[in-house]
Amino acid sequence: MSPQGFRGVSLRAGIKTQGDDLCLLWSETPATCAAVWTQNAVKAAPVWISAEHAQNATTRGIICNSGNANCCTGEQGRRDALTMCELASRVLDCDQGEVLVCSTGIIGHKLPMPQIESALQNVDSSTRFSSEQMARAVMTTDLVPKFCAASFEINGQTVTIGGQAKGVGMIGPNMAALGSSQLAGSRSLHATMLAFLTTDARLEKQLLQRALEEVVARSFNSVTVDGDTSTNDSCILLANGASNVEITHNEYSIFVQALQSVCIELAKKIARDGEGATKLVQIDVSGAASESDAKTVAMTIANSPLVKTAIFGRDPNWGRIAAAAGRSGVRFNPAKMSISIGAVEVFRAGEPTDFNVEEAEAQMAYDDLTIAVELGEGSASWTAWTCDFSYEYVKINAEYHT
Amino acid sequence: MSPQGFRGVSLRAGIKTQGDDLCLLWSETPATCAAVWTQNAVKAAPVWISAEHAQNATTRGIICNSGNANCCTGEQGRRDALTMCELASRVLDCDQGEVLVCSTGIIGHKLPMPQIESALQNVDSSTRFSSEQMARAVMTTDLVPKFCAASFEINGQTVTIGGQAKGVGMIGPNMAALGSSQLAGSRSLHATMLAFLTTDARLEKQLLQRALEEVVARSFNSVTVDGDTSTNDSCILLANGASNVEITHNEYSIFVQALQSVCIELAKKIARDGEGATKLVQIDVSGAASESDAKTVAMTIANSPLVKTAIFGRDPNWGRIAAAAGRSGVRFNPAKMSISIGAVEVFRAGEPTDFNVEEAEAQMAYDDLTIAVELGEGSASWTAWTCDFSYEYVKINAEYHT
Repeated sequence: MSPQGFRGVSLRAGIKTQGDDLCLLWSETPATCAAVWTQNAVKAAPVWISAEHAQNATTRGIICNSGNANCCTGEQGRRDALTMCELASRVLDCDQGEVLVCSTGIIGHKLPMPQIESALQNVDSSTRFSSEQMARAVMTTDLVPKFCAASFEINGQTVTIGGQAKGVGMIGPNMAALGSSQLAGSRSLHATMLAFLTTDARLEKQLLQRALEEVVARSFNSVTVDGDTSTNDSCILLANGASNVEITHNEYSIFVQALQSVCIELAKKIARDGEGATKLVQIDVSGAASESDAKTVAMTIANSPLVKTAIFGRDPNWGRIAAAAGRSGVRFNPAKMSISIGAVEVFRAGEPTDFNVEEAEAQMAYDDLTIAVELGEGSASWTAWTCDFSYEYVKINAEYHT
Repeated sequence: MSPQGFRGVSLRAGIKTQGDDLCLLWSETPATCAAVWTQNAVKAAPVWISAEHAQNATTRGIICNSGNANCCTGEQGRRDALTMCELASRVLDCDQGEVLVCSTGIIGHKLPMPQIESALQNVDSSTRFSSEQMARAVMTTDLVPKFCAASFEINGQTVTIGGQAKGVGMIGPNMAALGSSQLAGSRSLHATMLAFLTTDARLEKQLLQRALEEVVARSFNSVTVDGDTSTNDSCILLANGASNVEITHNEYSIFVQALQSVCIELAKKIARDGEGATKLVQIDVSGAASESDAKTVAMTIANSPLVKTAIFGRDPNWGRIAAAAGRSGVRFNPAKMSISIGAVEVFRAGEPTDFNVEEAEAQMAYDDLTIAVELGEGSASWTAWTCDFSYEYVKINAEYHT
């Protein structure tokens, strides 16, 4: 299952020590583009270039390399990012402004442009599109390629949404449209993550952007591995209309639902593959006075080193969960709070329940763990995804030198 | 060197598996008290009781146990905290409202009150006061006792300030007077840390509180091990006037300076002894548009798992430092930023310098490391203290079960 009218190739430019490290994803016809970008004050060159190109009425494709982030590379970096667009535009026979560029990998090194140019000269644009190969080409410390798709029917016509993502470290995305002040200064905590989404639906640009922003808030911007928001986080959605289905305000909610299922699936794949992770952890916060409160509590628990190491140790340490919720800055009354670890309620009304420790520990042995916190202050809820914090995380990040 | 007119005893009540776990610190005469408390929404019973008692005109002493935090212990916990004050007041022959109580250790367990009562029956109030023994009695996972003192002269008369502290995990203090909205909702990121400060100066209560709040902001509230603010953080300052030196607005700055030197020394001892730490790391941020900006950038770097694992790996990974500053939520222009690791400038004007990697790695081999970030946006500065993030941190926190 993949959206009609999209193609892609993965290539080896020799930026990484092995494997494909360059991919080109494109629509056969001009598409509409929506995108959100890292809010990090330090932004990589491709983010600036792509955010500008995304303003254009039509977009044909995305060129992306792994192994080098093209970040903190000055004026040369900016020229290199533009050159990547230009090289791709020659392959696609379009304007360079119709191409977006993304990079992920090491910071502060100039891109090996001759290698990238040479790799792009060999593109056979009739090659079969393999989602898995495309997803592999953007991997850095990822262990598994991440891609998925969803489809729905409207009046007997099928609309498909496809997505691929990468990212397992420096993961704490906080993406928004550039120039947007929506998330700036928020307490929202947040690897390079890249997500490329494609759909054969047709949407007006503004509606497409609204759908993407709405969905990213409750998917990619709610996943964390280490809370360290990258300089390169980018999420791009291309809609080419090849299904001949137009999404207007009437069909908006079904479209958003499908887009959300793809983005949540990819966000969960990111957390599950988090550096050193042994499990995927879902944090469900409910009963908050506002969505913002619910998100702040969920992300604070999801980023707590003490909670994450306890999960690695399979310790049903509700005290660390309660303390993390309490330090989030959100005001609530602990006497109204309850906490469950998997199916076991461990805390209620300000005190631990009389739970069976072995039973709680057993919940923590699964590959998927849900921690649920009910604040008892209102009806707003939020879900965040994270992973545990292991010896392997320290190993990967202490031994990977620049 | 210790302030006149203070005494203390350390005792074993059998709360911890070994060693002293109870101490009583007191002034021979009624003292004036200032205090700041954890801003965590989940507060331990002793915090509530002590914050109330701290409002009284005079204070005689502090009773403190380790091994059990008396947190999430409901109404019984509150009664036990009050009983501790009452037991201490009998020893000191004062009102129970003149005693403050602190607890640190495991959350969610009731205190063994008969053991505490029995230990306090054996207090020989004429015993010699040992700062080291007192500091040891409040240790939990601390490896070393933490205490220090400073003195200054005014008109030939000596004023002394002494201090003891504990805390190496769940360290990210964010303390303020209760009821204060000063720090609530701030982005300030935040073990149980306890600090007991004593001085033989005489100060009016309001001025003493002002001095403590000013000093705590730039000492204990600027230290982090894991960013996890505890439910029990407390910092108490007793001034008994035994030196016969009165501190008024004229002598305020010299007093604050001495108090600050004691608190910074204790804060650094906390970071250096942080769980699993191999070194003390100082983060100096300068050139910020405001102190709040400088603190936010410093604390975000100090709490970044990627920066902390890189330091453990002795990797001069300036990219992670730049990315952490950039995700702090503070707006700045990376083209104006510079970063130094020890004596080596590694980043300037948006790009890495041509630094010698071996030289930078050599800086990281010392037990003390300073990372300096100049933002180029203004003249405000802030200093934070942290430690590296090692395999041992994971071991301590994954294997220590509730």
